[in-house]
Amino acid sequence: MTIFKPYQLVSREVQPQDTLISIQNTVIGRDFVMIAGMCSVETEETTLYLAKLLHSYGIKFFRAGAFKPRTSPYSFQGLGIKGLEILAQVKQQTGMAIVTEVMDTETLQDVAAVADIVQIGARNMSNTSLLKAVGKINNPILLKRGAAATIDEWLMAAEYIVLSGNPNVILCERGIRTFNEHCRNTLDIAAIPYVKEKSHLPIIIDPSHAAGQSNLVTPLARAAVAAGAQGLMIEVHHCPEQAYSDGQQALLPAQLFELQKQISCFMPASCESLASEALPG
Amino acid sequence: MTIFKPYQLVSREVQPQDTLISIQNTVIGRDFVMIAGMCSVETEETTLYLAKLLHSYGIKFFRAGAFKPRTSPYSFQGLGIKGLEILAQVKQQTGMAIVTEVMDTETLQDVAAVADIVQIGARNMSNTSLLKAVGKINNPILLKRGAAATIDEWLMAAEYIVLSGNPNVILCERGIRTFNEHCRNTLDIAAIPYVKEKSHLPIIIDPSHAAGQSNLVTPLARAAVAAGAQGLMIEVHHCPEQAYSDGQQALLPAQLFELQKQISCFMPASCESLASEALPG
Amino acid sequence: MTIFKPYQLVSREVQPQDTLISIQNTVIGRDFVMIAGMCSVETEETTLYLAKLLHSYGIKFFRAGAFKPRTSPYSFQGLGIKGLEILAQVKQQTGMAIVTEVMDTETLQDVAAVADIVQIGARNMSNTSLLKAVGKINNPILLKRGAAATIDEWLMAAEYIVLSGNPNVILCERGIRTFNEHCRNTLDIAAIPYVKEKSHLPIIIDPSHAAGQSNLVTPLARAAVAAGAQGLMIEVHHCPEQAYSDGQQALLPAQLFELQKQISCFMPASCESLASEALPG
Amino acid sequence: MTIFKPYQLVSREVQPQDTLISIQNTVIGRDFVMIAGMCSVETEETTLYLAKLLHSYGIKFFRAGAFKPRTSPYSFQGLGIKGLEILAQVKQQTGMAIVTEVMDTETLQDVAAVADIVQIGARNMSNTSLLKAVGKINNPILLKRGAAATIDEWLMAAEYIVLSGNPNVILCERGIRTFNEHCRNTLDIAAIPYVKEKSHLPIIIDPSHAAGQSNLVTPLARAAVAAGAQGLMIEVHHCPEQAYSDGQQALLPAQLFELQKQISCFMPASCESLASEALPG
Repeated sequence: MTIFKPYQLVSREVQPQDTLISIQNTVIGRDFVMIAGMCSVETEETTLYLAKLLHSYGIKFFRAGAFKPRTSPYSFQGLGIKGLEILAQVKQQTGMAIVTEVMDTETLQDVAAVADIVQIGARNMSNTSLLKAVGKINNPILLKRGAAATIDEWLMAAEYIVLSGNPNVILCERGIRTFNEHCRNTLDIAAIPYVKEKSHLPIIIDPSHAAGQSNLVTPLARAAVAAGAQGLMIEVHHCPEQAYSDGQQALLPAQLFELQKQISCFMPASCESLASEALPG
Repeated sequence: MTIFKPYQLVSREVQPQDTLISIQNTVIGRDFVMIAGMCSVETEETTLYLAKLLHSYGIKFFRAGAFKPRTSPYSFQGLGIKGLEILAQVKQQTGMAIVTEVMDTETLQDVAAVADIVQIGARNMSNTSLLKAVGKINNPILLKRGAAATIDEWLMAAEYIVLSGNPNVILCERGIRTFNEHCRNTLDIAAIPYVKEKSHLPIIIDPSHAAGQSNLVTPLARAAVAAGAQGLMIEVHHCPEQAYSDGQQALLPAQLFELQKQISCFMPASCESLASEALPG
Repeated sequence: MTIFKPYQLVSREVQPQDTLISIQNTVIGRDFVMIAGMCSVETEETTLYLAKLLHSYGIKFFRAGAFKPRTSPYSFQGLGIKGLEILAQVKQQTGMAIVTEVMDTETLQDVAAVADIVQIGARNMSNTSLLKAVGKINNPILLKRGAAATIDEWLMAAEYIVLSGNPNVILCERGIRTFNEHCRNTLDIAAIPYVKEKSHLPIIIDPSHAAGQSNLVTPLARAAVAAGAQGLMIEVHHCPEQAYSDGQQALLPAQLFELQKQISCFMPASCESLASEALPG
Repeated sequence: MTIFKPYQLVSREVQPQDTLISIQNTVIGRDFVMIAGMCSVETEETTLYLAKLLHSYGIKFFRAGAFKPRTSPYSFQGLGIKGLEILAQVKQQTGMAIVTEVMDTETLQDVAAVADIVQIGARNMSNTSLLKAVGKINNPILLKRGAAATIDEWLMAAEYIVLSGNPNVILCERGIRTFNEHCRNTLDIAAIPYVKEKSHLPIIIDPSHAAGQSNLVTPLARAAVAAGAQGLMIEVHHCPEQAYSDGQQALLPAQLFELQKQISCFMPASCESLASEALPG
């Protein structure tokens, strides 16, 4: 029903070549990016323990929230500035790049000082004041799709950021709200090829928030890679039942490692070349 | 699926009696409240013209947005501070109470200085930083339901505000996102009796954003009143085709006046008493 | 997304005047019609008891299912032919018109022999073989909207019936499937004015299946009347906790009677004339 | 909200081992099954041409509808009995197994005489009379998920079939109805691992009806395989713009062949073994 002037700067018509975002040795949009970590920053000890373990598996991007947007005001709201300090420790001790969420302009400078990638969560995808604000910083932005946003609306949110001056936006699909009861959100797998056709921005998938339960995460992650996703963001915890938040959807580190080893196999490019070798057709 | 500690302060179990919010001579929660006006503040001349016309119809609450959250960054974003100044003129010249939206904490003090009721829009219902901030001001808050929020999530958003110190929250249902194609959003009419059972907060209806087209607005408004809504917020324009935004869903002033005259007739209390008179049963 | 040749015979463009369907002394489409009864036909004693009670309240249309489409094969599937015999008893002893559902062509003749109105349930709205079959009988058809059908698809289902030779179709909105958790289905109140604009067929509302719980039924029923619905179909039981099916959403007979007395008050026409008397405007 | 006695016969708790269905040399549930063909049976010449082409690519299961459930009565409704005769020709001349839809009990025997697998379409998933009827034939049944059915409701529909005497049910996910606008239906990829955990019945995916446009079909198909689907059903046409129905979502034969060659590469089992070889871990 909605009719509006369509997105411009984020569209492939305006810029045919892929947006590439270099962080340390990874070029997002060209290299597959695996982002893993816990839902919330926890104690310095726990957080560093998990980060070092993931780093030993070859994971280069660590995610954890210092500021947490929660449905209930009685749920854990994140460690705030203290959480950012712990993330700074992770960065210093492991060299991992940090992905963490910003919830408002008041804390944006603090978040941006630590984060290699600043995340806008699904709940804030339509917070246009925040979109404009992150459009004025230099950090790459990971923009999650709102749970009830069409893809056009999502790309329009990205347009707000790019139009405000920041071209480095990574799109992240994390499931949409439907009548389904067997998963927390319905992963919209078709978003991957559709977005890649319409936009030059990289698109990654968060299977954890879509699944809502750990046993669905690995199949969704494999599906995302096979559909052409350019990265994954996955919640992991070495002791899920003690996680500060969302433990039920966290993979164990060993499960993530298992998945990590298989990723390249599920990539369309590998399978295409394998198939052309195997069958002269 | 979501399991969380339920809402407390906004629940009828904790506070059985209705929350009553006095603004000028209207006690919201007891008296039916009709809020009408244009989508966006326009020129001083146009805005004052409409406000005075509505005031002559007996409308006491004027709505218009100075800050507009729009899907596209290329759509009109509102007049901003200039718009607030025009609203201050409306207030001064007509004595009407002002309802206008706040989009971020940066402009909250400016908005609160003019608004008799500060509105949180559907796009910001989950912006918990903003919810906490409006919990610390004294103005009553009109909290719209997010387009994909369950009622529990909406009441939890209200809980954020009340828990932060502001008990004067008015809930506003404006339609949810579904697969429907014949209207902009699907008005969830069952929300009215459900919310009145679960919470002591007043609930009003915005039929304009649900309908998305003017010819559906009056039937939706009548239905809302009949279901027990404690007020309406309606977009009106004397020249819809020249409205800065959302003209297609604006009633003409004469249509609003016609509706206004009928409201009391559709109220459950009138019909109950009428029925008991008519039929000794 | 779907593009198809639009409905013709059911559209108001093709036939501007309302379809009127005379059953006994009621002209559906002109007179408001109240259909009430239990979800399933139960014993002869119980069914007759309820029917006579409703008849004493002035209800002229009795609904109860002999054939029940249930989600689970382990749920009560209806009394079948025996149920039709009991409905014939109701008709004979009370003179009420019977509304009952048909689920397949095998039992269509048996159902049509008893029913004054043959119902197609929401689960069978897209069963085009059945739609074509009921298009060849003479009984009026009550066509429920599928839980996930757009209004265009619903009108197309009606078009199947009319095109097959039966012009007497009554549309019945009963709620759509959404992410909502507080009600069984989301009553799409905007369907009423929209359908009345697009089609000449009468439209009635089933608030019971939308609500899913009895305490929401009366507010939804009032809202439907206020939005212009031309009738209601409501589940009632004198002993809901002993109902064979859907007892939790059944009104008590006294609640139905209370609602029945108020209906005329909520009608737009009454309120318009009342308002024009009260206020010279 | 819905509470009912849960499925029994189709649940993995009752039968831990996978249901295996042998058709010719394929054991569905163990061997990956690729079903391909046109939406509707067309002329004998066209249908045989496509079938022979697909057969030459190694496809063993041919799909095409003789009876078509269409939204509009003015759309092509299928060739009916004549279509079944053409499918019999395909079977005789190519030896391919036939998958075709049944829409009612009247034509069930005719369909069952030709079909190796009898399909129940999404529109008829809740047509319990038809479910009971196909439970009494010997052919394996392909049961599509209704566009608005929860997985519990879908498994309950399968339970109707198995309880009526036919244990050979293949589940087929084909997308659900959501607010999405960029695809015809939203493919629910999480249904694959969830169903495999809860039920012993094989599950395959129809990416064509989910996508609604051909350029999304291959990525969805790859994703389905990677998530563990046990087969695919894909619409193909050598001349999509001349297809009798749904041409816009048909792959070209060469595109199907390309996909077919890559399938084994995307299978979780291949990737797991490849990963364990590559990395001693």
